Amino acid sequence: MLSKILLLVLALASAALGLADPAGAVGGHAVTSFTLSNGLQVVVLPDHRAPVVTHMIWYKVGAADETPGKSGLAHFLEHLMFKGTAKNPGDTFSQDVAEIGGQENAFTGSDYTGFYQRVPRAHLKEMMAFEADRMTGLVLNDDVVKPELKVVLEEQYMRVANNPAARLSEQMDAALYLNHPYGRPVIGWRHEIEKLDRDDALAFYRRFYSPNNAIVVIAGDVTSDEVKTDAEETYGKVADRAPTNLRQRPMEPQQEAPRTVMLADPRVEEPSVSRDYLVPSETTAKPGESEALDVLAHVLGSGEDCRLYRTLVVDKGIALNAGAYYSGTALDYAQFGVYGAPKPGVSLRDVEAGIDGVLNDVIDHGITVDELDRAKTRLIADAVYAEDNQVTLARWYGSALATGQTVDMVRTWPDRIRAVTANDVQQAARTWLDRRRSVTGYLVQSLQPQESHS
Amino acid sequence: MLSKILLLVLALASAALGLADPAGAVGGHAVTSFTLSNGLQVVVLPDHRAPVVTHMIWYKVGAADETPGKSGLAHFLEHLMFKGTAKNPGDTFSQDVAEIGGQENAFTGSDYTGFYQRVPRAHLKEMMAFEADRMTGLVLNDDVVKPELKVVLEEQYMRVANNPAARLSEQMDAALYLNHPYGRPVIGWRHEIEKLDRDDALAFYRRFYSPNNAIVVIAGDVTSDEVKTDAEETYGKVADRAPTNLRQRPMEPQQEAPRTVMLADPRVEEPSVSRDYLVPSETTAKPGESEALDVLAHVLGSGEDCRLYRTLVVDKGIALNAGAYYSGTALDYAQFGVYGAPKPGVSLRDVEAGIDGVLNDVIDHGITVDELDRAKTRLIADAVYAEDNQVTLARWYGSALATGQTVDMVRTWPDRIRAVTANDVQQAARTWLDRRRSVTGYLVQSLQPQESHS
Repeated sequence: MLSKILLLVLALASAALGLADPAGAVGGHAVTSFTLSNGLQVVVLPDHRAPVVTHMIWYKVGAADETPGKSGLAHFLEHLMFKGTAKNPGDTFSQDVAEIGGQENAFTGSDYTGFYQRVPRAHLKEMMAFEADRMTGLVLNDDVVKPELKVVLEEQYMRVANNPAARLSEQMDAALYLNHPYGRPVIGWRHEIEKLDRDDALAFYRRFYSPNNAIVVIAGDVTSDEVKTDAEETYGKVADRAPTNLRQRPMEPQQEAPRTVMLADPRVEEPSVSRDYLVPSETTAKPGESEALDVLAHVLGSGEDCRLYRTLVVDKGIALNAGAYYSGTALDYAQFGVYGAPKPGVSLRDVEAGIDGVLNDVIDHGITVDELDRAKTRLIADAVYAEDNQVTLARWYGSALATGQTVDMVRTWPDRIRAVTANDVQQAARTWLDRRRSVTGYLVQSLQPQESHS
Repeated sequence: MLSKILLLVLALASAALGLADPAGAVGGHAVTSFTLSNGLQVVVLPDHRAPVVTHMIWYKVGAADETPGKSGLAHFLEHLMFKGTAKNPGDTFSQDVAEIGGQENAFTGSDYTGFYQRVPRAHLKEMMAFEADRMTGLVLNDDVVKPELKVVLEEQYMRVANNPAARLSEQMDAALYLNHPYGRPVIGWRHEIEKLDRDDALAFYRRFYSPNNAIVVIAGDVTSDEVKTDAEETYGKVADRAPTNLRQRPMEPQQEAPRTVMLADPRVEEPSVSRDYLVPSETTAKPGESEALDVLAHVLGSGEDCRLYRTLVVDKGIALNAGAYYSGTALDYAQFGVYGAPKPGVSLRDVEAGIDGVLNDVIDHGITVDELDRAKTRLIADAVYAEDNQVTLARWYGSALATGQTVDMVRTWPDRIRAVTANDVQQAARTWLDRRRSVTGYLVQSLQPQESHS
C-alpha cells in the first residue's frame, strides 16, 4: 500500500528498463503477451531459477484521473481494495498470502494503480482468482472506510506534511504544471483527502477497475500456456465494464515563464536547490528523444563521475552533492531534474549558477564520445542487473504498459540506447533544458531576505 | 462580448461599491429585490433622471465552473448567446437594440457571465422578453459556431498572446492557485479553446443557464412594481432547469511556499515587478476583514499620495510607478496586488525590496489616523461618484450578488468602511501580506542571468 515505492521505481526505471547485456547480446528473459476476450492484457515473463512467481495487476488509472476536488482518491481506493469482497470477506486475501509465506504490496502513481503478490508457484491461480474477484466484487461500508481514511491521512502526514523536502516537491509540481493534473499530489491534498468517502471510492472503482483497463504481469516459474489457461479460468470470467477512452486529461498550454518556489522549514539542515524541466516521456517523445534524455541525465548527473558532481563537488568544492535524473515513464509528460546542495557557507544562488554553467556547457559544446560510451554501457548494464530481479522486471513491464508503451518498446530499449549519438544528446539538451519550461525549488531553513530572491 | 471589461470593473469594484456620501448621509438610490417562483432574483434600482433603463442579466457561472480541459467555454458561450433562437433567429435581438438606439454588451468572469442592454425605458419589457427567450431557446449550428470560434481565438491573440503583460498575468494566476480553477484564464488556454465545439457549448448552456441560477438587475426610469409585472410576464414563464449546488470547486491547500514567475518578451520596454497575495474575498472574509483590505490597498497604493508611490517614486526616486489594489469581488478567493516599475538603470530587485520595505513598515508600525481617515473618505466618495452612473451601479449589484453577497451587504458597505480602525488595517496587513501565500511576477525584456534570480 505504499505509493512512494512507485516513485522510486519510476526514478530508476529509465535507467533500468531493458533486456540486453552490455556486450550487446540479447537479455536472458523471454516475454509473451496475450489479451483475453474481455480486454485484459496478460504479460508473462518466465523465470525458472526458483519455484516462485510474482503476480501483478496494473490498473490504467491513477491520481491524474481523479475528478478535480477528489485528489487522493486513486490512492485511497488502493487502500480500500484490501477490505474484502462478498466471496472473500475482510482480509481473507491477505491472510491467505501470509499463510502461504508470500509477500504482497500495492502502489499508486499518477498514471496507474497496482497490486502484487510474490508466492510459491503452486499458488498463482489462487492469486489470480483473488484478484479477479476483487476487480468487481469489492464490498465497502463505513466501518472499514472511515478508519482507513485515518490511515491515509496519517500516511500523508508522515510522508508529506512532516517532510519539508516532500512538501517542496508537491509545491514544485503544482507550479510546473499549469493545467495538467500531474500538478496534483498522488497522495492528494489533505483538505480533499479528509472529505473522501465510500461513495467516491465505489464510483471511482466502478468507473476504472475493469479487465479492459488492466494489465496482468506474471514473472516466475511458469509457462505462458499455463498462465493463459489459469487466466482464462479466473480473469476471463470478469465482464468488461469500463468505457474506452477514459483518460482525456487537460494538457499544458505553451510554457514560457520560468518559475521558482521556495519552501522554508526550521528543520531544514541542508538547504538545496533543484529544478524540474517539463520534457517528453518515453510515450510521448519523438523517436530517439527520450533515449537521448536518458543518456543526458546519466552524463550530467549519475554517480560521482558525472558532470554535475565532478564540477560542483570535486572541482569547485561548492556543493555537498549534485546530480540529475530523467523520469521518463509517464503517459503524458515527464520531468528532467537537476539538483545540488551547497556546502555550508555557500549560497543556493552560487550552486544554481554552477548547475547552469554545467548545463550551458553541454548545450554549447555537447558531450564527449567517452562520456557517451560510458553512459550507454552503464545504462545497459544497470538494465541487465535489474532484469535479474523478478519483481523489478515485472514492474518495468507493468509501468511501461500502463503508460502507453508496448512490450516491443520495452524489449528494444537497449538497442535504442545504443543508437544514441553525442549529437542527439546535445540536441536534447538544447531543446529541453529550456528554463521557460521549468520550475526551480529552494529548500531553506527560513525565508531570509538574502535567500528570498526578491 | 468583452470579457476584459469585467476585469477592469472588478479592480474598481472594491473601491467603488457603496451607496452613501462622504458626509455619511444615505446614498441617493433606492433598491428593491424580489425572487420569482422559478428562482430568478430581480433587483430594481430606480433612477428617474433620464428616460432610459439598464437591463442586465447575470448568470452565476463563469470560467471557474468549466470542466477541466474545456477552458474558455464560459466565454465562448457568451459569444454564442448572440447567435439567435427559434423565436428570434440570427441577430434579431441585437438589431432590435440598435434600431431603438440602445447599447448592449456582455462579459465573462471567473464567477459569472453577464449580458446587458441600455435602452429607452419603453423598451424594457421587450429586452426582458428577448433575454427570457434566449435563456433556454438558443439555437446553435456549426455554421455559426465555427466562425465564432475564430473570433474568440483572435480575441485571445489580441488580448493575451500578443500582450506580454497579459501573458505574465495568466502565468501568475496559474502559479498562485495550486488547485482552484481561478488559476485558469477566463478566456481559456488557447489549445483548449481550439477544440471547443457546439456540443460543449450547448451542454454548458443547459447546465447553467436557468432562472434559478441568474440575477436580473434593472436600473433606470422604472418602478419596482412595473418591473415585477413585466418580469413575471417574461422571465416568469421560463422553467427552472439548473440543479442547485452547482458550484463545488476544488479549493486551495495550505499555501506555504512563495512563488515567482518571470516572463521575457523583446517588446517589453518597461520592466516591472508585481506580487499577488491570495486573500479573502468580500464573500469569504471574516467581518471587517475585506473592508480593512480595501483601506489597506488604498493607503498603500492608490494615487500619488499613497505609501508605495511616495516612497518609491517621490522619495527614493527608484521607480516610475508603484501601487496596490484589492480585487475583493469573488466567490472563493480574492487577490491583493502590489506592483512597481523601476526607473531605467534600477533593478527589479531593488524595486521589489523597496515594496517589501513599505509593506513591512505597515506590518510593523501600522498606518496613521490621517491615512486612515483620508482613505475612508476617498473610498466612500469614489463610491458615491460611481453610484451616480446607472450602469456602474447595476454592475456593483450584479457582480456582488453573483458572487454570493446580498443586497444588504452592498448597501452597508460604506458603513462597514467607516467602521475600519487603524488597528484593523495593521492586523489585515500582518495576516494577509504573507509571502508564503503569494506569487511575484517579473516582466522583462530577456532572461538575462542578472534578472533570472537564479
